[in-house]
Amino acid sequence: MPLSAAQQAEIDQARGEPRPTLRAVVPALEEVLYAALPVLDHGFVRVVDYMGDDAAVVQAARVSYGRGTKKVSEDRGLINYLIRHRHTTPFEMCEIKYHVKLPIFVARQWIRHRTANVNEYSARYSILDNEFYLPAPEHLAAQSSTNRQGRAGVLEGREAARVFDLLKRDAELAYEHYMEMLNEGEDGQPLDPERSGLARELARMNLSLGFYTQWYWKTDLHNLMHFLSLRADSHAQYEICAYADVMVDTLRRWCPMTHDAFQEYALGGARLSRTGIAIVRRMLAGETVDQKSSGLSAREWRELMATLGRD
Amino acid sequence: MPLSAAQQAEIDQARGEPRPTLRAVVPALEEVLYAALPVLDHGFVRVVDYMGDDAAVVQAARVSYGRGTKKVSEDRGLINYLIRHRHTTPFEMCEIKYHVKLPIFVARQWIRHRTANVNEYSARYSILDNEFYLPAPEHLAAQSSTNRQGRAGVLEGREAARVFDLLKRDAELAYEHYMEMLNEGEDGQPLDPERSGLARELARMNLSLGFYTQWYWKTDLHNLMHFLSLRADSHAQYEICAYADVMVDTLRRWCPMTHDAFQEYALGGARLSRTGIAIVRRMLAGETVDQKSSGLSAREWRELMATLGRD
Amino acid sequence: MPLSAAQQAEIDQARGEPRPTLRAVVPALEEVLYAALPVLDHGFVRVVDYMGDDAAVVQAARVSYGRGTKKVSEDRGLINYLIRHRHTTPFEMCEIKYHVKLPIFVARQWIRHRTANVNEYSARYSILDNEFYLPAPEHLAAQSSTNRQGRAGVLEGREAARVFDLLKRDAELAYEHYMEMLNEGEDGQPLDPERSGLARELARMNLSLGFYTQWYWKTDLHNLMHFLSLRADSHAQYEICAYADVMVDTLRRWCPMTHDAFQEYALGGARLSRTGIAIVRRMLAGETVDQKSSGLSAREWRELMATLGRD
Amino acid sequence: MPLSAAQQAEIDQARGEPRPTLRAVVPALEEVLYAALPVLDHGFVRVVDYMGDDAAVVQAARVSYGRGTKKVSEDRGLINYLIRHRHTTPFEMCEIKYHVKLPIFVARQWIRHRTANVNEYSARYSILDNEFYLPAPEHLAAQSSTNRQGRAGVLEGREAARVFDLLKRDAELAYEHYMEMLNEGEDGQPLDPERSGLARELARMNLSLGFYTQWYWKTDLHNLMHFLSLRADSHAQYEICAYADVMVDTLRRWCPMTHDAFQEYALGGARLSRTGIAIVRRMLAGETVDQKSSGLSAREWRELMATLGRD
Repeated sequence: MPLSAAQQAEIDQARGEPRPTLRAVVPALEEVLYAALPVLDHGFVRVVDYMGDDAAVVQAARVSYGRGTKKVSEDRGLINYLIRHRHTTPFEMCEIKYHVKLPIFVARQWIRHRTANVNEYSARYSILDNEFYLPAPEHLAAQSSTNRQGRAGVLEGREAARVFDLLKRDAELAYEHYMEMLNEGEDGQPLDPERSGLARELARMNLSLGFYTQWYWKTDLHNLMHFLSLRADSHAQYEICAYADVMVDTLRRWCPMTHDAFQEYALGGARLSRTGIAIVRRMLAGETVDQKSSGLSAREWRELMATLGRD
Repeated sequence: MPLSAAQQAEIDQARGEPRPTLRAVVPALEEVLYAALPVLDHGFVRVVDYMGDDAAVVQAARVSYGRGTKKVSEDRGLINYLIRHRHTTPFEMCEIKYHVKLPIFVARQWIRHRTANVNEYSARYSILDNEFYLPAPEHLAAQSSTNRQGRAGVLEGREAARVFDLLKRDAELAYEHYMEMLNEGEDGQPLDPERSGLARELARMNLSLGFYTQWYWKTDLHNLMHFLSLRADSHAQYEICAYADVMVDTLRRWCPMTHDAFQEYALGGARLSRTGIAIVRRMLAGETVDQKSSGLSAREWRELMATLGRD
Repeated sequence: MPLSAAQQAEIDQARGEPRPTLRAVVPALEEVLYAALPVLDHGFVRVVDYMGDDAAVVQAARVSYGRGTKKVSEDRGLINYLIRHRHTTPFEMCEIKYHVKLPIFVARQWIRHRTANVNEYSARYSILDNEFYLPAPEHLAAQSSTNRQGRAGVLEGREAARVFDLLKRDAELAYEHYMEMLNEGEDGQPLDPERSGLARELARMNLSLGFYTQWYWKTDLHNLMHFLSLRADSHAQYEICAYADVMVDTLRRWCPMTHDAFQEYALGGARLSRTGIAIVRRMLAGETVDQKSSGLSAREWRELMATLGRD
Repeated sequence: MPLSAAQQAEIDQARGEPRPTLRAVVPALEEVLYAALPVLDHGFVRVVDYMGDDAAVVQAARVSYGRGTKKVSEDRGLINYLIRHRHTTPFEMCEIKYHVKLPIFVARQWIRHRTANVNEYSARYSILDNEFYLPAPEHLAAQSSTNRQGRAGVLEGREAARVFDLLKRDAELAYEHYMEMLNEGEDGQPLDPERSGLARELARMNLSLGFYTQWYWKTDLHNLMHFLSLRADSHAQYEICAYADVMVDTLRRWCPMTHDAFQEYALGGARLSRTGIAIVRRMLAGETVDQKSSGLSAREWRELMATLGRD
């Protein structure tokens, strides 16, 4: 359970005060506004604000004066067309803001997406909580021997126990020493009134990449989809993928038409190369093509066959 | 009057439907939401959406769970501190979206600010209206002879009349020929049913930079202030400054504390160079400093004396 | 011929002074460095600087200390892999700078690509030259009646002559009046010593979108390819496409491996939707699929059939 | 000594092969090109490529055809003018690329600057080296009791020894267990041939924020100065400031005129608020102003007095 009673009370208060607005409102997203949607063992994703909806995409594409209340089917058709033809700017007209709690190593992948706004909890200024990520047994993955960036199966038995134990004990020790160096007791009082304590900006060095941090993260709908297409992908590390999956669900609540187009064209689609298209054409014409005659490398051939369901 | 009856009806409809939301709401901005605030002879600025408020800046700076309802004076103090010390990221957590109608030469200056989202009315796809900018007599400025980029006084008498007449007639002629090349009558029917008409994407070439275009333009609070600090400045061209002034007023409605800090530190402040600071210190110590002994160029000296009210 | 003798002399001088450097050097690009590659009737593209080469992409992907002198075939394989899997950041490590002369309406499309650096010739500060774009007869396109954003055939005979004449005369008139309002003779002397002349920043309003402007434009290899994939595309307007085509050729000289991957995966490839992939799988399994049974709209079906060479 | 023999050999090789180019060359920067400039105990900054020089700034500001070989004093005057008046785009026309080795907690501050290109060494893919940052005694700072984000003095005696020991031992232990979980010996062989080893992307979790990472980092001259103005500042954490100081020196070699303007207007200058200017004017007019009559908060008053050398 990631939230303290005080935090939950703040959330409840924020959820208890509806106010009238003339802006676009999305009831399905308001249902979960401010709520902490759990991810991993101590993390969460909270939607804390949003601007616009599916209709705002249409409105921007048409540079119209009103809400652009055409028929719903026309809105859907236009949104599909815009995504298919890479007309991305209308999707930049919607904006969403999240509060996310996440392990530092996940944060380090995430921050590589530069077209977003970020305010992170500062460990120069404040003291981090004693919370770190420990993979569930089914995610304690072994290193792949064929793909240097991949996982292969799961550690089991004594090896799994040993790894889990090391991760846990090292994190506990790191935190204990972090507090000792800070000269900071759990009650907020100095451990030793005679000592000054190491500067927070230095003491944080002792914490490992498994500790949780948190940030406000805000982006537009286009860049959200770009982020999700990379991070809700099978090549992404499981831990960031877990966040992306929860965020895909918030996208579905927020802009259902755009979400469907995203599933159809981005997540569910695939890009073929010039040679790949030529191969499909040959196969459709009845020709038998194998890797040797394809003009593709072995790896590219495998990827194409997987796309075509022939693996 | 820049709006047609149909456009005004769309705006009225959008303003007539308040709905409940759990998000931050700013009543002073909702008062003018969707309304066309007039600028120049045919232009306008419309706020069409916003996200966040002064409290959201504080909330992001503190990465807090709730609205951060500390004392108002603390919020103001923190906002002042953030701006003074260039902690700009919390201001990126608020977002605003405008619908703007503006002459093309103004749009060309404006678009240079890249950290914004834009959807412009497409003259490849649609036909532009017959609206162009004609400066009011008090803005028909003469070229400065000392500053190649500046204005000096106002044209008067016959010269003013001649210039006004040229601008008006050339624009009218350009539009008439634009429609003729398009083979497009005012009633939407072809002028000549036998002709095909020039492609819209080519015909627009005949329109001049004084014609009006329009766009949706969305940016965050930090980048809005950066834009306004450059464009509500005395060095900016009058015509873009006219837009910036109206937008400063929307900023005042939206985030009054941030607006005050913006006036105090950005618009109303000034930057001193290392040498400039040394000069002020010498002067405060009672020394008489002139340009020769200052170490500054004549131009820099004039700029410093203007800042210090000694010109 | 777009260059004056003085301009050509400056280019010749720049080309006449090779100097030693320890940086990566690309002889094939140095061959055309600074040269004005002609585009349209008065425009050009000049490569004025570059940083990095194909090997620098590999070097960045490996975060290596030296030049990464692996086998050339390995470099090519890695570059293909990076592009195929959207690992775009190594391509951001190369940079190129162009000097471009282009019609204003082309500049207005071009500037929408925000991830670039731009310095444009200032008509607030300087006087624009008397050069405007007139389409060659084979590009005097008619408006498409089916695609509002498209061209359909070419104007001919009297209509072509009339349109050409209007474009030419209106531009000449606009320029003549521009100079009159500026009170500026061709010799740089005032037309009338008694008049002050309209401010340059206002007089430019009278020029039409067909006049040429120029700018320095700098971007990285990844964003260059993104720009070219949109603007060297068949949906782009012919006039901007003409620039993109010349720039694709400079890409081929600069980074030939990346260029080949760009042709294979970006320009020559295509994206299939989830449904599109399912259709291809059904067809490969021997099923006959038509639009009705496909689950696609008529338009999407046409696009898919075109990709598969079945239109 | 941060470099292995193999790494040094790669650098020497790169430095041994001058080649002719027609581009701008900066001999003072070529002198240190590729060399590892040491920072902290194991870090470095290497300039690995650059584009442009002071003259390229001038050239872009003038959109000129040649090198713009005006008088040197004119170039300097223009560069000063551009910086003073926030005409930042000409400085975006120069680009520099660094290879940096730095502690992860420094990398996490650094990456917040988004207008740069980054390729970081991947601990998903590769194994990190056993190198971590230990502050020198004079940088083992105590936490400030007045400024939550600040340092106050240095830890001494037994406390310093204890802290240093904890940092060192925890890092050593973390690395030992990292290798054990990876099942990776120092010789690159498995520790235990029967075990599979934890996935690298998970094992890295056990490393602390003091471990070194490395990346290629590329930015333009304007954004470099913005980064340096924030990070070579007295409010920045010492460890990132150490990197910024070395980079300021590379800036001095690369673009000496821009460097001087940067020192004069950015690093050495200060911004006064509207009220601050009014106070200076009052003081120059002979009035005695104290905090109470100033209209400033106590903190702002202290900051202003420090700027004016009256603290």
